[in-house]
Amino acid sequence: MADTKTYDIAVIPGDGIGKEITPEAQAVMEKATEGVAQFNYTQFDLGADRYLRDGVILTDEILDEIKRNDAILLGAIGDPRVKAGVLERGLLLKMRFALDHYINLRPSKLYKGVTSPLAHPGEIDFVVVREGTEGLYVGAGGSAHAGTDQQIATEVSINSAAGVERTVRYAFDLAMKRRKHVTLVHKKNVLINAGDMWQRIVDKVAEEYPEVTHDYLHIDATTIFIVTDPGRFDVILTDNLFGDIITDEAGAVVGGVGYSASGNINASGKYPSMFEPIHGSAPDIAGKGIANPTAAIMSSAMLLHHLGLDDAAEKIERAVEADIEENGSTARSTHQVGQDILARLA
Amino acid sequence: MADTKTYDIAVIPGDGIGKEITPEAQAVMEKATEGVAQFNYTQFDLGADRYLRDGVILTDEILDEIKRNDAILLGAIGDPRVKAGVLERGLLLKMRFALDHYINLRPSKLYKGVTSPLAHPGEIDFVVVREGTEGLYVGAGGSAHAGTDQQIATEVSINSAAGVERTVRYAFDLAMKRRKHVTLVHKKNVLINAGDMWQRIVDKVAEEYPEVTHDYLHIDATTIFIVTDPGRFDVILTDNLFGDIITDEAGAVVGGVGYSASGNINASGKYPSMFEPIHGSAPDIAGKGIANPTAAIMSSAMLLHHLGLDDAAEKIERAVEADIEENGSTARSTHQVGQDILARLA
Ligand SMILES: CC(C)[C@H](C(=O)O)[C@@H](O)C(=O)O
Ligand SMILES: CC(C)[C@H](C(=O)O)[C@@H](O)C(=O)O
Repeated sequence: MADTKTYDIAVIPGDGIGKEITPEAQAVMEKATEGVAQFNYTQFDLGADRYLRDGVILTDEILDEIKRNDAILLGAIGDPRVKAGVLERGLLLKMRFALDHYINLRPSKLYKGVTSPLAHPGEIDFVVVREGTEGLYVGAGGSAHAGTDQQIATEVSINSAAGVERTVRYAFDLAMKRRKHVTLVHKKNVLINAGDMWQRIVDKVAEEYPEVTHDYLHIDATTIFIVTDPGRFDVILTDNLFGDIITDEAGAVVGGVGYSASGNINASGKYPSMFEPIHGSAPDIAGKGIANPTAAIMSSAMLLHHLGLDDAAEKIERAVEADIEENGSTARSTHQVGQDILARLA
Repeated sequence: MADTKTYDIAVIPGDGIGKEITPEAQAVMEKATEGVAQFNYTQFDLGADRYLRDGVILTDEILDEIKRNDAILLGAIGDPRVKAGVLERGLLLKMRFALDHYINLRPSKLYKGVTSPLAHPGEIDFVVVREGTEGLYVGAGGSAHAGTDQQIATEVSINSAAGVERTVRYAFDLAMKRRKHVTLVHKKNVLINAGDMWQRIVDKVAEEYPEVTHDYLHIDATTIFIVTDPGRFDVILTDNLFGDIITDEAGAVVGGVGYSASGNINASGKYPSMFEPIHGSAPDIAGKGIANPTAAIMSSAMLLHHLGLDDAAEKIERAVEADIEENGSTARSTHQVGQDILARLA
């Protein structure tokens, strides 16, 4: 028998359907690693319920506890009872920033058996490398005369050469393992300061990767190509906000964000990385047991890859692909999808 | 015979295919207004050729001449020989800002005869009201240690209550003439300063329009719905950057930006408004005489509406719709499309 390694995993089901899909993902990763790895899960009660109960969003003490884990499995954050931004910024973004999750990795793949809203989707298989700790997400805006007719509201995008360069390197490394093409997405004809810096660093790093080709697209043109020619993309490299936008659009063209996993990765290994579906907490269907746990399950596979448990991760990916191909268009409960995928791992 | 009124029109064909499509638009608006209006055109030689020839992008004197007109017909700006941003910011955005074009109006309609890339597009007929003079487009960014590994690049989005409110009012007025629904698009869970202000002002103005319903969507979710359920939208109200992004995506789902017109409108009437296709100068097909002039022709119809020449504008719209229905899928030269539409006006 192989040695079993033990990993500490922080589990944050969060809000809405997050609570329903996360247990399915845990069950699947448990099964896929039988005999290979063991997980000590610590459940963290964070999100809207906790906040409304005792006012806690995320304390430094909780953050320290989370940091002691090898990885984090997150469900979804956001609840209509809480003002927009409070939990997103206080919990989700706070973790991404405090744990230096500078790579937000989001694969988009059209699986066999999934119906794309596009008439002729062709093959879609690209990955978005979204910078995760800079840009407009730093929270550097403010208001003068708030709430009055004289209000001035600002939002400041802050970007550093070091922050961009580590992201660019990650994208080129990833491209080397794929079809060797990187597309930088920005809006450098308007955002000339940040845009020029991204382009300069891409051009510089690219010299070290002679096998990787690269091109550039404005964000607006990118939203067109994702609909008209998604097959052209291999690795898309972009900033925090543009990455947020195009990964949702990409999720839609591959048949719905219900299939799209993501990793918030601290590639330096200093802090635990966090894996979550790209979809939100879906308050409209929460509590009904009908949310699709596939994206959460695929997030657990990304988590396993990150821990170096590639065989187990690939087992999950194959099981998910087979499940989608057979049952993709069938309405099933959250738990049923989990069970069907589990059965394929047996 | 009806009185003919005379209007002064500034024509800026600009770059690439802009030069090929603009004459077709002029010919069509000329024909559609026969006996009703007369136009004195002043051609402005602006864009890459001019800039590369004598370094002029847009002087204050030229801007003053442009201001003396009743409206502006623009082709497209942007050329690969000129660094990205130079012409866009120095010419196109400079005009939008100097002429206080605070409404960037962009209808998206799926015409009969046009093939959408969506498998089941349904009926698509919405208008994006994009704020045109604020946000990340103000050019308020900068760099420290530019060009070095220590570079910090910022981009600042500046938004004023007055700037937002006039845009919000325009959107609600427009909704009253349409299906009476406004969707505010922003990212208020992250950009809380600007996002809160937009939402506050929408809620305030909405009280004066009891017949208009309104809702809110994050920009990322919006890119999903444009692909999965574009029929849900009537009037989309959003800021400068988000409007740039979703109108390109919307252009794609209605069969290509080749059909999408836009107005840069100074609704106060102080300065001339400017009408242009939402597509760019398309250097890849420039000079071949194959660019589709439909968006430019539809822009001339918007221009006529703006001057109050609604009958003539509607004649063009009907001719374009009939032309697309009959010939939408046929490859035709730029001039042929112009001629076919002209023939329908006879
Ligand atoms: C919830 C929100 C703050 C978040 C983001 O904007 O990053 C989400 O949309 C995502 O993409 O993970
Ligand atoms: C050319 C560019 C500056 C412009 C914009 O970003 O507004 C264009 O994309 C548009 O939408 O008109």
